[in-house]
Amino acid sequence: MKLSILGCYSATPRALNNTTSQVLEIKNHMFLIDCGEGTQVQLRKHKIKFNRIKHIFISHLHGDHFFGLVGLISTFRLLTRETDLHVYGPKGIKEVVTLQMKLADSWTNYNLYFHELTSKKSELIFEDDKVEVHTIPLKHRIYTNGYLFKEKQGDRKLNISAVEEANINVAYYRKLKQGFDVVNEDGLTIKNDTVTQAGPKPKSYAFCSDTMYKEDIVPIIKNVDVLYHESTFLEQHAHLAGKTKHSTAKEAARIAIQANVDTLLLGHYSTRYDGLNAFKQEAQAVFKNVELTEDGKTFEF
Amino acid sequence: MKLSILGCYSATPRALNNTTSQVLEIKNHMFLIDCGEGTQVQLRKHKIKFNRIKHIFISHLHGDHFFGLVGLISTFRLLTRETDLHVYGPKGIKEVVTLQMKLADSWTNYNLYFHELTSKKSELIFEDDKVEVHTIPLKHRIYTNGYLFKEKQGDRKLNISAVEEANINVAYYRKLKQGFDVVNEDGLTIKNDTVTQAGPKPKSYAFCSDTMYKEDIVPIIKNVDVLYHESTFLEQHAHLAGKTKHSTAKEAARIAIQANVDTLLLGHYSTRYDGLNAFKQEAQAVFKNVELTEDGKTFEF
Repeated sequence: MKLSILGCYSATPRALNNTTSQVLEIKNHMFLIDCGEGTQVQLRKHKIKFNRIKHIFISHLHGDHFFGLVGLISTFRLLTRETDLHVYGPKGIKEVVTLQMKLADSWTNYNLYFHELTSKKSELIFEDDKVEVHTIPLKHRIYTNGYLFKEKQGDRKLNISAVEEANINVAYYRKLKQGFDVVNEDGLTIKNDTVTQAGPKPKSYAFCSDTMYKEDIVPIIKNVDVLYHESTFLEQHAHLAGKTKHSTAKEAARIAIQANVDTLLLGHYSTRYDGLNAFKQEAQAVFKNVELTEDGKTFEF
Repeated sequence: MKLSILGCYSATPRALNNTTSQVLEIKNHMFLIDCGEGTQVQLRKHKIKFNRIKHIFISHLHGDHFFGLVGLISTFRLLTRETDLHVYGPKGIKEVVTLQMKLADSWTNYNLYFHELTSKKSELIFEDDKVEVHTIPLKHRIYTNGYLFKEKQGDRKLNISAVEEANINVAYYRKLKQGFDVVNEDGLTIKNDTVTQAGPKPKSYAFCSDTMYKEDIVPIIKNVDVLYHESTFLEQHAHLAGKTKHSTAKEAARIAIQANVDTLLLGHYSTRYDGLNAFKQEAQAVFKNVELTEDGKTFEF
């Protein structure tokens, strides 16, 4: 699981600060999460192949999370993309993108599917044989979802010497990997766990931006490996966090500890602060394993 | 008259190539012309004060000329702008900007006026005591206007020694500057041109992008000091220019020579070419005084 931070600042793009966008590589998928203005240029800088992006997840329709979407969709068209593209986001996202296509008389030459969200409960919105994506209802000034990306439990690993010793026909190996007991060449039932072991623990990533402190999300993100939780402000500006429905670094850490996550990533920083270290320090007073997202950084888990 | 090139490439923004946007400083105005994605960051890099921009002119609704507009308008809001903003552009521009404001539940705290254009004839769309702006109807795949920016002829300059010698009361100096004959202290009529001279020649700038070769614009832009004319392609790709309704460098030069302009600026280059010199050479075979726009360049006239 690899996470590339294309942008992690709030409000407006600046010469050296990009607004929210991330790419999550998980089980051969390349998921784009949020798409602030300039995201397509950030993708180029990260040398991410445009065609590998087949799913875009937009948390909400504030500009710093989606003003780069229409440009990216348009650039895909100019580059003669043929691959399908799926866009997940709040209701309205289809209208605003298609209106711009209509005005430009420039329709995509690839299939573009919108999956508009309206539910206030967590939903399964994408699933294949390896990965699930669920929404995480957040509380912000407008309708907003975070996203939970979960690997599925993979096949069990065969203990080859044990399997051979148990005299099991090769035809049953697939059933063993799927966790079933099987009958061997001698007609004996072989218990699955005597010849296999569990595959690697599935990884999970929760993206939570933008939101005020909201404990309701804890059950949804419980035990994830990595939690990105916005921390627009420090506690000294808790009143601004309340007013604008954002979180402080301390609040992000309080969510992390309750959800028992492995690693907390902070981001969506207000540019009012001189540096980022204070965010880390404030969070670490509550929860130890904190990392700062920064534009251009990548994390591997 | 000062022109700052924020971006001069066609199609899509890249790490080092910005799409069309220019700032024209003329008679204390700061006019923003077109607004591709990333324009607000380019404005910051050029250290242009956001509040000085009160008028934005959008040529057409292709993304590389206007996808940065909604972000800029939104950033003005976040920076608590109070100054009025006027946006000129094709019909539809108001709907697409206001839809995004509605979805974000983020309305401007300053007055935002849209001036939607539909005419296929040149119109006077802005005028004050020093400057006029006219549309230049262009021919592209969708409805497109260029813009002609003209200084008005300023006051005549007094020849002070001649004025004093002619025994004219100071109360009449303003009338003299305005070009009137006046009566002196001795009751004699003094011919204006015996005591004044013309002020500096008013400057003019014509912005023509995007367009195929269109001789109809020549009378509108006749004798301008500076003509920016798009040159997306070189003659070797004239078939592409025809197909996409763009111009070649040679065609831009043919317009320049017919319109008898002082200086031709080229731009809106396709990124298929390795460098820009071939554009200049091709145009100079037809018209001598050619300059290349490049991102970050400024021209003073």
